[in-house]
Amino acid sequence: MSRKPHVASIAPESARHPDLVIHARYLAQVENDNLLEHYSVVVQRGRILDILPSALAREYYQAKECVELDEHLLFPGLINLHTHAAMSLLRGVADDLPMMRWLKERIWPLESALVSHEFTHDGTRLACAEMLKGGVTTFNDMYFFPDAAATAAVEAGMRAILGITVLEFSGNYASDAADYLHKGVESFERWHAHPLIGFCLAPHAPYSVSDTTFERIQTLAAQLALPIHTHLHENHDEIREHLETYGCRPLYRLKRLGVLGPQFIGVHATHLLPDEIETLAEYGCNLVHCPASNLKLGCGIAPLADVRRAGIHVGLGTDSAASNNRLDILAETRLASLLAKGVNQDAGLCAAWEMLRMATLEAAIILGREESLGSITVGKWADMAAIRLDTLSLLPCYHPVSHLVYGAGREDVSHVWVGGEARVFDKVPLNIDVTHLKNIARLWQNRVVSCLKMDVRL
Amino acid sequence: MSRKPHVASIAPESARHPDLVIHARYLAQVENDNLLEHYSVVVQRGRILDILPSALAREYYQAKECVELDEHLLFPGLINLHTHAAMSLLRGVADDLPMMRWLKERIWPLESALVSHEFTHDGTRLACAEMLKGGVTTFNDMYFFPDAAATAAVEAGMRAILGITVLEFSGNYASDAADYLHKGVESFERWHAHPLIGFCLAPHAPYSVSDTTFERIQTLAAQLALPIHTHLHENHDEIREHLETYGCRPLYRLKRLGVLGPQFIGVHATHLLPDEIETLAEYGCNLVHCPASNLKLGCGIAPLADVRRAGIHVGLGTDSAASNNRLDILAETRLASLLAKGVNQDAGLCAAWEMLRMATLEAAIILGREESLGSITVGKWADMAAIRLDTLSLLPCYHPVSHLVYGAGREDVSHVWVGGEARVFDKVPLNIDVTHLKNIARLWQNRVVSCLKMDVRL
Repeated sequence: MSRKPHVASIAPESARHPDLVIHARYLAQVENDNLLEHYSVVVQRGRILDILPSALAREYYQAKECVELDEHLLFPGLINLHTHAAMSLLRGVADDLPMMRWLKERIWPLESALVSHEFTHDGTRLACAEMLKGGVTTFNDMYFFPDAAATAAVEAGMRAILGITVLEFSGNYASDAADYLHKGVESFERWHAHPLIGFCLAPHAPYSVSDTTFERIQTLAAQLALPIHTHLHENHDEIREHLETYGCRPLYRLKRLGVLGPQFIGVHATHLLPDEIETLAEYGCNLVHCPASNLKLGCGIAPLADVRRAGIHVGLGTDSAASNNRLDILAETRLASLLAKGVNQDAGLCAAWEMLRMATLEAAIILGREESLGSITVGKWADMAAIRLDTLSLLPCYHPVSHLVYGAGREDVSHVWVGGEARVFDKVPLNIDVTHLKNIARLWQNRVVSCLKMDVRL
Repeated sequence: MSRKPHVASIAPESARHPDLVIHARYLAQVENDNLLEHYSVVVQRGRILDILPSALAREYYQAKECVELDEHLLFPGLINLHTHAAMSLLRGVADDLPMMRWLKERIWPLESALVSHEFTHDGTRLACAEMLKGGVTTFNDMYFFPDAAATAAVEAGMRAILGITVLEFSGNYASDAADYLHKGVESFERWHAHPLIGFCLAPHAPYSVSDTTFERIQTLAAQLALPIHTHLHENHDEIREHLETYGCRPLYRLKRLGVLGPQFIGVHATHLLPDEIETLAEYGCNLVHCPASNLKLGCGIAPLADVRRAGIHVGLGTDSAASNNRLDILAETRLASLLAKGVNQDAGLCAAWEMLRMATLEAAIILGREESLGSITVGKWADMAAIRLDTLSLLPCYHPVSHLVYGAGREDVSHVWVGGEARVFDKVPLNIDVTHLKNIARLWQNRVVSCLKMDVRL
């Protein structure tokens, strides 16, 4: 951030005619918990060129497009750090069931009957529409058919980090771990240069991935410089079964296999012993907190405050629409904060700024992409969202960031930009054929209902 | 519900021309967890005259107004069973503070500087706008200046149950307990015959109301046939201090004073010992669960599942916008269910239908108003709301009620009726001068900010 035009002395005349200038009533700088008032963001070729007082910006820049956010808070685009996006097609298909029954009796049989390139494409497209409308500009996905997900994300104009997903079991996408890896790496090669697309290695979970495969993944992650995104200690049964099979809790095995490190992204971590928190901190591991999904599947409540106290980076994830059932990161910031306060009986924990940081800059750091994502900073991609503060649910307003986290909902998101391209403008989603997408969703509804009628559980 | 026109054989010809018929794709009958498809609700003079298959309704009734809800779920208007509605003017003024500091350093000093008839009227008016838009048709309020709140609710066209609030301390509204009671009873006499207005005795809390006053309230509640609405066991400190002052926990004292019974509505009950749950069940007491507020103020998590197992009636409340910070009962149904599942590690607890029932019929039972409120039933007031299910965030749809509780948000509420009068239609709030109300909120914002600058805390 500069108080004078950033490019004034060094840039050519053309820099005075940038693609876009956004004049914001409030601007949240998550890198230092700083609330700027009457500041403007200048965007050129998708990136942030300058951040300066609006009075100066109006004097200095003649942009091709100007957006006035008179009554708004502009904040970095939210990052959903754990999704199975395509499962938006299975939202609500198995509510009020415990996690292992949910998986074994409903989700897995339905997936085995339905999952395909087409399912993944259509489901991801639908999830992108929902997430963009709610201020999410990047999601970190773990699913099958990453080519299909990449196509959907690019069509939606959304940033996606796709999992090179690996399981030992045969499925509709691949036959065994080697096949998953082979196909995933092929997708990586096809897509990783695309500005909207990135990758993680995504071993499904300790209970579904063998030692040998974890070792192979570890090598690949180092070779390709990719994070490792995996489910970790989601529920008690899984830990108990792992103890029976491997003689240790999952985290201990991952440590032994050399998987832990700053590239490690463990999702859920609902059950952690004190020494496991120490281990995670010691290795510089990262966690993703999915509070709604953890509650809804009866898995428990991750010890967010303890993990923060240990200095571990934490981002927020929705998990899939089949277990949440909203792909709503703004709601997760609120829920995560409220849970930490309530469980620890300390209302000062996980305050508004910290939550916003977890959902933006800290998530970008976890993905190893803080140089280009996660905050409104000169040089980064212009991934931003705004909420309108002058509504009957948000007036009066004393602290815009506290309003964003505790008072607002995704319904208040008015504008979303990804790489400087408007994806939502005055609450209207752009770049989407809504009727077409609804019809596709209805088509899948019929297919799923047919499967349920065939009692796909058996 | 009748499969034939209810009034066909007994009613005069005029009954075939009712005020309103609503044709709904889905209709939630909370009295028996029954989902009707393609059913219609017939409304005459504010009450439900008939409920029948839409095909029959179209044949039989020629209504003055017809509403087609082709893609919607129609459900009973939500009941917010615990509010301090006027505090919408203080939303976000004291976030991330522990409860007693929140109260003593911010809320009470601000209230003492600002609360008046005008404050209560304007704040309640704003709260009504927010609640109606989110599908809430009735709220159970505890605040000062009930005449002001009644006026605001009637202007908004919303149903309000107002507290005859009692504290021992002098405040802007009254000087001592006798004065509170005197003024409250005067308001009761002025307003209780109004179809939109009801009353509760509302002793603030065991720690702020003396034995003598509780006894007086108990007598009055019996004389006026009103429920007793009070804060109960909200946090640890309050229970510990009560133990020091009275030598017992608050519930035990209330029992001794004879306050417990089916007319008793205890709010929060975040901390309950097993024998206290037994006592509450034994006396037929009712509870209000305010999960978001309890978490946010660091009070804890009420044992909803245990309380349900004991057979206690439970409704849901938001508490005030200063501690929630949303007056969003739909969000509370989701949060309460998720918390019960997560805390007990049992995803089957507090399923979708049960949550919807708590927020509607059970709340009406708790208020002693189940004969006229809480479900879509012939003879009751036509207090109803609808969500639109064919959106990109809710398609596909397998279970409309599970979608309502787990997937939808108040942003999906499309229609709201109170006593058959439309208050929200296709998401547009009626009966409200939005610009005027926003200006009023801004005025109060300036006054609150002035108080904060004067360091009202000291």
